[in-house]
Amino acid sequence: MQILVLNGPNLNLLGMREPETYGTITLSDICSEMDILARELEVGLTHYQSNHEGDLIDRLHQTMSKEAAVIFNPGAFTHYSYALRDAIAAVSVPVIEVHLSNIHAREKFRRHSVITPVAAGQISGLGSTGYLLALRAAVSLAASEEEGNE
Amino acid sequence: MQILVLNGPNLNLLGMREPETYGTITLSDICSEMDILARELEVGLTHYQSNHEGDLIDRLHQTMSKEAAVIFNPGAFTHYSYALRDAIAAVSVPVIEVHLSNIHAREKFRRHSVITPVAAGQISGLGSTGYLLALRAAVSLAASEEEGNE
Amino acid sequence: MQILVLNGPNLNLLGMREPETYGTITLSDICSEMDILARELEVGLTHYQSNHEGDLIDRLHQTMSKEAAVIFNPGAFTHYSYALRDAIAAVSVPVIEVHLSNIHAREKFRRHSVITPVAAGQISGLGSTGYLLALRAAVSLAASEEEGNE
Amino acid sequence: MQILVLNGPNLNLLGMREPETYGTITLSDICSEMDILARELEVGLTHYQSNHEGDLIDRLHQTMSKEAAVIFNPGAFTHYSYALRDAIAAVSVPVIEVHLSNIHAREKFRRHSVITPVAAGQISGLGSTGYLLALRAAVSLAASEEEGNE
Amino acid sequence: MQILVLNGPNLNLLGMREPETYGTITLSDICSEMDILARELEVGLTHYQSNHEGDLIDRLHQTMSKEAAVIFNPGAFTHYSYALRDAIAAVSVPVIEVHLSNIHAREKFRRHSVITPVAAGQISGLGSTGYLLALRAAVSLAASEEEGNE
Amino acid sequence: MQILVLNGPNLNLLGMREPETYGTITLSDICSEMDILARELEVGLTHYQSNHEGDLIDRLHQTMSKEAAVIFNPGAFTHYSYALRDAIAAVSVPVIEVHLSNIHAREKFRRHSVITPVAAGQISGLGSTGYLLALRAAVSLAASEEEGNE
Amino acid sequence: MQILVLNGPNLNLLGMREPETYGTITLSDICSEMDILARELEVGLTHYQSNHEGDLIDRLHQTMSKEAAVIFNPGAFTHYSYALRDAIAAVSVPVIEVHLSNIHAREKFRRHSVITPVAAGQISGLGSTGYLLALRAAVSLAASEEEGNE
Amino acid sequence: MQILVLNGPNLNLLGMREPETYGTITLSDICSEMDILARELEVGLTHYQSNHEGDLIDRLHQTMSKEAAVIFNPGAFTHYSYALRDAIAAVSVPVIEVHLSNIHAREKFRRHSVITPVAAGQISGLGSTGYLLALRAAVSLAASEEEGNE
Amino acid sequence: MQILVLNGPNLNLLGMREPETYGTITLSDICSEMDILARELEVGLTHYQSNHEGDLIDRLHQTMSKEAAVIFNPGAFTHYSYALRDAIAAVSVPVIEVHLSNIHAREKFRRHSVITPVAAGQISGLGSTGYLLALRAAVSLAASEEEGNE
Amino acid sequence: MQILVLNGPNLNLLGMREPETYGTITLSDICSEMDILARELEVGLTHYQSNHEGDLIDRLHQTMSKEAAVIFNPGAFTHYSYALRDAIAAVSVPVIEVHLSNIHAREKFRRHSVITPVAAGQISGLGSTGYLLALRAAVSLAASEEEGNE
Amino acid sequence: MQILVLNGPNLNLLGMREPETYGTITLSDICSEMDILARELEVGLTHYQSNHEGDLIDRLHQTMSKEAAVIFNPGAFTHYSYALRDAIAAVSVPVIEVHLSNIHAREKFRRHSVITPVAAGQISGLGSTGYLLALRAAVSLAASEEEGNE
Amino acid sequence: MQILVLNGPNLNLLGMREPETYGTITLSDICSEMDILARELEVGLTHYQSNHEGDLIDRLHQTMSKEAAVIFNPGAFTHYSYALRDAIAAVSVPVIEVHLSNIHAREKFRRHSVITPVAAGQISGLGSTGYLLALRAAVSLAASEEEGNE
Repeated sequence: MQILVLNGPNLNLLGMREPETYGTITLSDICSEMDILARELEVGLTHYQSNHEGDLIDRLHQTMSKEAAVIFNPGAFTHYSYALRDAIAAVSVPVIEVHLSNIHAREKFRRHSVITPVAAGQISGLGSTGYLLALRAAVSLAASEEEGNE
Repeated sequence: MQILVLNGPNLNLLGMREPETYGTITLSDICSEMDILARELEVGLTHYQSNHEGDLIDRLHQTMSKEAAVIFNPGAFTHYSYALRDAIAAVSVPVIEVHLSNIHAREKFRRHSVITPVAAGQISGLGSTGYLLALRAAVSLAASEEEGNE
Repeated sequence: MQILVLNGPNLNLLGMREPETYGTITLSDICSEMDILARELEVGLTHYQSNHEGDLIDRLHQTMSKEAAVIFNPGAFTHYSYALRDAIAAVSVPVIEVHLSNIHAREKFRRHSVITPVAAGQISGLGSTGYLLALRAAVSLAASEEEGNE
Repeated sequence: MQILVLNGPNLNLLGMREPETYGTITLSDICSEMDILARELEVGLTHYQSNHEGDLIDRLHQTMSKEAAVIFNPGAFTHYSYALRDAIAAVSVPVIEVHLSNIHAREKFRRHSVITPVAAGQISGLGSTGYLLALRAAVSLAASEEEGNE
Repeated sequence: MQILVLNGPNLNLLGMREPETYGTITLSDICSEMDILARELEVGLTHYQSNHEGDLIDRLHQTMSKEAAVIFNPGAFTHYSYALRDAIAAVSVPVIEVHLSNIHAREKFRRHSVITPVAAGQISGLGSTGYLLALRAAVSLAASEEEGNE
Repeated sequence: MQILVLNGPNLNLLGMREPETYGTITLSDICSEMDILARELEVGLTHYQSNHEGDLIDRLHQTMSKEAAVIFNPGAFTHYSYALRDAIAAVSVPVIEVHLSNIHAREKFRRHSVITPVAAGQISGLGSTGYLLALRAAVSLAASEEEGNE
Repeated sequence: MQILVLNGPNLNLLGMREPETYGTITLSDICSEMDILARELEVGLTHYQSNHEGDLIDRLHQTMSKEAAVIFNPGAFTHYSYALRDAIAAVSVPVIEVHLSNIHAREKFRRHSVITPVAAGQISGLGSTGYLLALRAAVSLAASEEEGNE
Repeated sequence: MQILVLNGPNLNLLGMREPETYGTITLSDICSEMDILARELEVGLTHYQSNHEGDLIDRLHQTMSKEAAVIFNPGAFTHYSYALRDAIAAVSVPVIEVHLSNIHAREKFRRHSVITPVAAGQISGLGSTGYLLALRAAVSLAASEEEGNE
Repeated sequence: MQILVLNGPNLNLLGMREPETYGTITLSDICSEMDILARELEVGLTHYQSNHEGDLIDRLHQTMSKEAAVIFNPGAFTHYSYALRDAIAAVSVPVIEVHLSNIHAREKFRRHSVITPVAAGQISGLGSTGYLLALRAAVSLAASEEEGNE
Repeated sequence: MQILVLNGPNLNLLGMREPETYGTITLSDICSEMDILARELEVGLTHYQSNHEGDLIDRLHQTMSKEAAVIFNPGAFTHYSYALRDAIAAVSVPVIEVHLSNIHAREKFRRHSVITPVAAGQISGLGSTGYLLALRAAVSLAASEEEGNE
Repeated sequence: MQILVLNGPNLNLLGMREPETYGTITLSDICSEMDILARELEVGLTHYQSNHEGDLIDRLHQTMSKEAAVIFNPGAFTHYSYALRDAIAAVSVPVIEVHLSNIHAREKFRRHSVITPVAAGQISGLGSTGYLLALRAAVSLAASEEEGNE
Repeated sequence: MQILVLNGPNLNLLGMREPETYGTITLSDICSEMDILARELEVGLTHYQSNHEGDLIDRLHQTMSKEAAVIFNPGAFTHYSYALRDAIAAVSVPVIEVHLSNIHAREKFRRHSVITPVAAGQISGLGSTGYLLALRAAVSLAASEEEGNE
């Protein structure tokens, strides 16, 4: 089973950027932690990060023929990218939305997500642990979908 | 007379994506139907699709020296891309906005278009027929503009 | 195949009224253009205009036994007549909403239509050409409904 | 004692129109059921239906010299006819508002009634039974008003 | 010079209806007072009242060939009849909006007028005196328009 | 057939509390009137009143194994208790919402009910008569549900 | 009988300021016209203009012992000066609000008046004629109040 | 280490209630699954469910001296219980909010949580798996808090 | 004269909870200070605190036969408990609302009180001093009510 | 210790103005009562009233070198004078906001105070007693600030 | 060339007031810096500060005959003084709006300016440097206007 | 010292596009003017324009190691690109937002900037002069930051 880990705009700066909000852990640290858990759960991971909305849409389209589930932190696109929302609705794999910080305890615009209504589920506020939980959830969801399809 | 047919994000998945909303006809089917009508109306068509907002803006800029009218389905950019709106306002060719589904009978956010106020007209809810009607409208508009300029 | 062309309040003044917004073409000019196209498409047209909401509702009710599709410009009723909306939802023929001007580029109240959610489709901003396109769309819709019913 | 049963726009189509929402019972069926109960309660009924707001206002005005109470289903006028609201406030007989369906469980615009603030009471969601309950309520209200006037 | 005095829904009940809000003077009393002043000002008056929106629109259309100005109390249509608004905008004679009561000191929905933006002016809260002032204003406006046209 | 009559907060004070709004009839008077009608209609009634949201939820849960319908005046919980709403949605018996006063003619917050969208119907503004009508409606609804289940 | 003519901020610039909106007539021209009519109606006028909210409040307080009515153009204070509103409510003389332009046909903030709910009436959009009509209305109101007090 | 699993109103009906939304798994099934994982993670669990807001507040207060973290599904209290929010803010243990369904893809009122701003994190839409992930998160959070306090 | 001091949810934690907002003084400290002032003013006090909305309503009902005034800090119920609001409106004793902190300088939801419109007065932001001032106000209000009743 | 008692617009009319809302006690009566209590509490009072926003700002600026606390009834400036709000935020003495009536039980605009967020506390609805309580609060606040500064 | 530097309410306290927001530089320091630059640019400056809205309006009126441009920091009047807005629209000299702090990063009410729509331009968030830039802009604007008038 | 001049979507068309709003000066003209001033101020400039949001984000990320300040005209991205906002917040160099036109005097959506809250300052409405002022401000800000870091 193959799973896509998709990270949106500015997440490449993680660890360098506003550490009081996002901590000092880098995106590559998170990827390493996820890879360890992925081996334990016996699934393969692909990591992809981009600051370009169009690239994220293109990569989501490819997932239809490549992966069984997506773990997606859309960054600030969470709040306005209806194009990403449509891309998620269009592809048939389950998407788990992850946010490092508790977006509901920050600025007002961060409390509204245009992505969540089409996501399978959302995990927020649990830092890098959230990615690991999302991986467990993704494996569990993809497994039960496979069962359902048999 | 040359006319640009511009399609925005996720329209490349047409026919594969949510058929209960968008039907089973593909974008390439629509292009073929339009090409037939274009020959009948004796105009040339250029087809362009992209999931990247920036690419669509760049292509709209080129239209100033290339085409007499644009048929544009902005997909989800309809609802938030003020940059596309400004691009349309900036180029001097008439733009006909097309939507396959009746966007006013769907989710609330789909009822608001930031594009329409700068478009020449809008056709929605008529499926692929809408593209053909838009082509007739585009030819008619471009013809009367040419007359006006003479 | 018989099609109803329904025009709402103040459209009888077309050509005399605010020409900078609505042009100098009269409603009877539009009817003539439509009749020519109707003959070409081999369908019959009935024209009806009224400034009375109740008359338009009564006429829509009759369409159930008389016509295969309706082309409807509800004029200002577009923005508040839930009674007309219910009438359209109640009768089983497809309705194409037409507006001469681009209602989305005018006063704010004109941007909201209570009719569109129950219409099959909407064409706006294309002047009298919009009526001709609506006729083509109506014929196409009615034809495919007939096929579906066979 | 005489009571007016007033039905607004599109209710003449009851039973033919959107049966999943309104059922298959016709307006004439409801009138018959009411007439039976009216005889049991020893009151006279007058039935009036119109799709014309002005006709309903004119009829409400006449009620001042004719009836002791009104049972009124304003249909879609419920949501915008301030003229009907003023007519009810102007005549001195109590008005019971009835709706076949639960208007609070449908589209958002149906949840707002401009009529209710001037009605004596409202019954909704109980189908044709609602009309019968309204008749009992009307008789009870008119009786206690008469007592009060003695 | 001929002037139309147009009264909307429920104003036929004036004097009988909610006297604590509207006083005990009847519409026919007001007409008589206006006729006296009209003779003094040497203009002719036509009085027209209807509870039907469509009738008021039809009558406004006729004013184009008959009267030099209109005094209009739209009653509750003030708050939602965009069709009447369009009729006023369509005819070329100045319209003075009159309200007996101070609509800004009553229920919230009465504070919003869809008519005022296309009226020449508005007089409210001054009871039947308001009609007499409106007549003076109408004569003055019509006179200066005539001058302007010479 | 057994029916639950459920009354929410402050209804125990009925008759003592704000008589200009709620009248002088007490809750126990209403119960007596309902018991008489219940005997006539040959159904059994259980009366329960509480000022505690949790108690009302617990009692609604028990109704699943005890009663065929519920008559419910949620008092002020009408306006914010989503927990009661979920309880009604969870149990499979029809619930008729009753209000003594016309909640739409009072303070703005009273016009919004979070309960109505999951209720079978609503009766308001008809005083204690409303409870009796609700009993008739409950019996009629429960009877037709039983029929449907056979 | 003595009447106060009160003019608020920027009205001293009338005739010099934005003539496309306010015309070329000056405040002193209007005062002269009013004085002539006042003599005709046999009342005395006091004119007062200030750009200071506090001065206008102080002057309104004095009116209690000096004048029988006030004609007031509050200028931009119309839209936010609750202190002026309270001053008008506090003094016992009737106040007629006047606006030269049709404030309902201009920027959105101009459509809301905090003054009108406590004014006896409002006249707007009729230019300097509005002041003359207001004078007639003020005399009529003050006269009937005097009668009422006898 | 001891952890509290707190469940709010109507969750006692889980499995019996609206299975198309919440599935057929019961609350006691979820508790059993959690107990197994708790043993694996070597922590103790206490389960508590109530339909009474006050009981949940009282139980949260006790957590200060008893547990290191709380897993909380507030049910419908999520949307309005500021009292529960204050209780969470008052006690010093981290709280993980869990929802079985994706609350952002349901009715509008379910999208707003008054609890989330004071929760450590939120997991939603992942069914009973969400509780297990929350347990892992709670253990991880409590462990790092303990470290921080040493 | 007997006075009830009523404290709502989470106030039992006062002094332990968020001291930067609420200080280190405990509820029992405040009660002691109030008892001293009560003796000085020669009135009797009853203290009652609960986290249960229903308990607070029940206790307010009892006040009708027991106390002459109520000092009430509704805690978070301030913002949504319309049931408490109705209870206050129903009992005939004056209620003084007290808040320790300045609720208008905190989160937005704390600025709206559903209780205040039915309270005799409100004191906020003055810490425990506010309770002492409320006691003085309560005695003064109850005294003048007693006078008024003689 | 010196304390400023500041009264805003229209409070000079107290006792003459709308006695059903504000009672018959005059501002000078209130000043006398406060002077008596001030002597008892051994503080000096300065009274200042103005209808001019600018005067109130100037006087607040002077307080920095003159007084230890301010008791302020801003009258209608409460609802819009951000300039007064900034003046209070700029001077370093605590300000107690007082309102004679319960502003939350009156017109909607009176419920919003732009002053409260920068005030130390607020007392409303307690009539002239409110001023006396504010004096006690001001003395208490100023005393504890002095202590804090030592 | 003569330029007016206008400062609104509370700016006289600059340097003494909330230094964490506004810094320690005083208004007189800023004036000195501006005078130096003015000499360099060979223009004359007049400085005027007032806490009185009316004084600022009066001074703006005088600018018509005295100055070629205005640099204006309206302080808190920015957010509600439509009277100042009208004064700026009335005088024919260009006005540059200046704010020391970034008003868009502070409280919500500070983000809305009623002045900006009639100002030539706005400079905010750049501290005292903003005044110097405004001076350069004012000179440049006034120069090009003079050119245009020649 | 190195400074980045960043221009967003459609600014490449400057001079060709809507000259009545944006003038006839081209982007390359502005760059030349800025280069001259940069030489005078002894700083280096880099110019970058893109219609792609992702490219602008990428370029802002690079600024961390390359430039001391950024001058940024985000074009239409001003109104919705939270991703650009996050990029600015993430990089540690000060950003000056520039707009050619007065965005507050145009369409409503242009009045809201999601960028300004994280910008150091904003200059709008001053045409190409605004870029030159921004350059002066950028140099001044960067210089004082360098000082602060020493």
